[in-house]
Amino acid sequence: MINKLVAGIQKTNAPIVVGLDPMMKFIPEHITKKAFAEYGETLEGAAEAIWQYNKGIVDAIYDLVPAVKPQIAMYEQFGIPGLVAFDKTVKYCKEKGLVVIGDIKRGDIGSTSAAYATGHLGKVQVGSNSFYGFDEDFVTVNPYLGSDGVKPFVDVCKEEDKGIIVLVKTSNPSSGEFQDRLIDGKPLYEWVGEKINEWGADTIDESGYSAVGAVVGATYPEVGKIMRKVMPKSYILVPGYGAQGGKGADLLHFFNEDGLGAIVNSSRGIIAAYQSPAYEKFGSQGYADASRQAVLDMREDIATALASR
Amino acid sequence: MINKLVAGIQKTNAPIVVGLDPMMKFIPEHITKKAFAEYGETLEGAAEAIWQYNKGIVDAIYDLVPAVKPQIAMYEQFGIPGLVAFDKTVKYCKEKGLVVIGDIKRGDIGSTSAAYATGHLGKVQVGSNSFYGFDEDFVTVNPYLGSDGVKPFVDVCKEEDKGIIVLVKTSNPSSGEFQDRLIDGKPLYEWVGEKINEWGADTIDESGYSAVGAVVGATYPEVGKIMRKVMPKSYILVPGYGAQGGKGADLLHFFNEDGLGAIVNSSRGIIAAYQSPAYEKFGSQGYADASRQAVLDMREDIATALASR
Repeated sequence: MINKLVAGIQKTNAPIVVGLDPMMKFIPEHITKKAFAEYGETLEGAAEAIWQYNKGIVDAIYDLVPAVKPQIAMYEQFGIPGLVAFDKTVKYCKEKGLVVIGDIKRGDIGSTSAAYATGHLGKVQVGSNSFYGFDEDFVTVNPYLGSDGVKPFVDVCKEEDKGIIVLVKTSNPSSGEFQDRLIDGKPLYEWVGEKINEWGADTIDESGYSAVGAVVGATYPEVGKIMRKVMPKSYILVPGYGAQGGKGADLLHFFNEDGLGAIVNSSRGIIAAYQSPAYEKFGSQGYADASRQAVLDMREDIATALASR
Repeated sequence: MINKLVAGIQKTNAPIVVGLDPMMKFIPEHITKKAFAEYGETLEGAAEAIWQYNKGIVDAIYDLVPAVKPQIAMYEQFGIPGLVAFDKTVKYCKEKGLVVIGDIKRGDIGSTSAAYATGHLGKVQVGSNSFYGFDEDFVTVNPYLGSDGVKPFVDVCKEEDKGIIVLVKTSNPSSGEFQDRLIDGKPLYEWVGEKINEWGADTIDESGYSAVGAVVGATYPEVGKIMRKVMPKSYILVPGYGAQGGKGADLLHFFNEDGLGAIVNSSRGIIAAYQSPAYEKFGSQGYADASRQAVLDMREDIATALASR
């Protein structure tokens, strides 16, 4: 799967993943109104609005980017109907040829991690049949429980040709509270990075990258510089661009010299572009066109940064 | 909510939480057969079997224990139908008066953690209405992202009188890979424990405990001894008893001298008791009775251990 992602980045010339993290306040009124008219102001109504909103964005950007990253929390908060919208979104994006990174940040003890891996990347057995539960291409994984919490995901990745992206250094302000603490002279995130090399060692495919990637926030470019070297075979997923403060120039360190090795996420900067001054001319009816323009501008921003070095 | 849990422990004299972590191989054939006859060998069929199996166990044990802990991964692996079974299980257990600890181990950056907290402990706004997504009483939370990943959960706990239980030292063999590493002379889990005191400081209720508890595995009794002192106001959820190797005597250190302060989880040791030699006389038709007997025996084991000191 990592080779599909790398090929998509090369084809589109856009190391960009669009974060499909819908919030009700992002959704244009004409969409919400229609959904509520049909389903009422209910969880089903919210889920319908989210799905229609996502569909509009995906239709507008699927030819420009290799991947999307739906954040499951934004769906899970609407209970079962929200998760139905998540599932529809994942399926639709895959139909459109996009690589889907489920941002689920799961992680547990062995047998439980195996269940999460089965549910999101693999097939579950029911009698003599087997079924995909959700079926993303990649999922994000939390490393706090150590190797036996991560390896069940890697096993499923090998069987199903899928991938995981492990949290190393997250983009939020307090990520340093534990992740930056020094252990034998090295920050915790670096120890996690070294484990990622181990976990992914026998999953490197023809792209030259492994099925075990890493999350390192755009808000910490100096960490990106170090971690790019610590984990040479891992793709780095870089959240925090745009709304969280990361800029094009900050991203340089996350990439290898050939321009590969990193994929940058933007969520609200793209999906709610029409609400920002730069794109307000599109109006709420043109929200999807605004998202498309925001992707084009982000692609340009990253290309300029990469060309400048 | 922590006072409800403590009162339940005192009333039942059982500091026990039953882990509702169904696996297909645990479910008696007569239940699976009936569910498949109605829904086929489908995700819906599996979900129906899980629900009926859970219901049998809950009916057999609800008067003996204060709480249950469904592990969401075991439901999530069956996709949407599995999560419907999770939701039904949570609702049914609450109807039976049980405190429900959703073992979800979520944790993310601020706005995303807020969405998880909303979805599992709070109410989500849809137009002028608000709805509970899942509605557990407690959920487990992963601390890797630091304070701004945890505080949104605490905020919802305050609004809704609910609680969280944060991973400190997990019961799995490789938990030490990161959790045991020394930072300024103290293991990472101890730093997490100290943060738990901070996060819960203004949530202590009449029980004397805070809304922010901690997970410390029964498999690490020496850590329990230390952490019981480090986090005097936090209830400790102790997984790893029984199937994972923890024994009654190992549990002593997790409790305060008054016998409070800890609640011990057992999952397959109770829900799949009929499959173990000690309870095979119940047979698969009597699986729920076997679970009841296993709870009674566990209660005795813990009481004996507590009385011995």
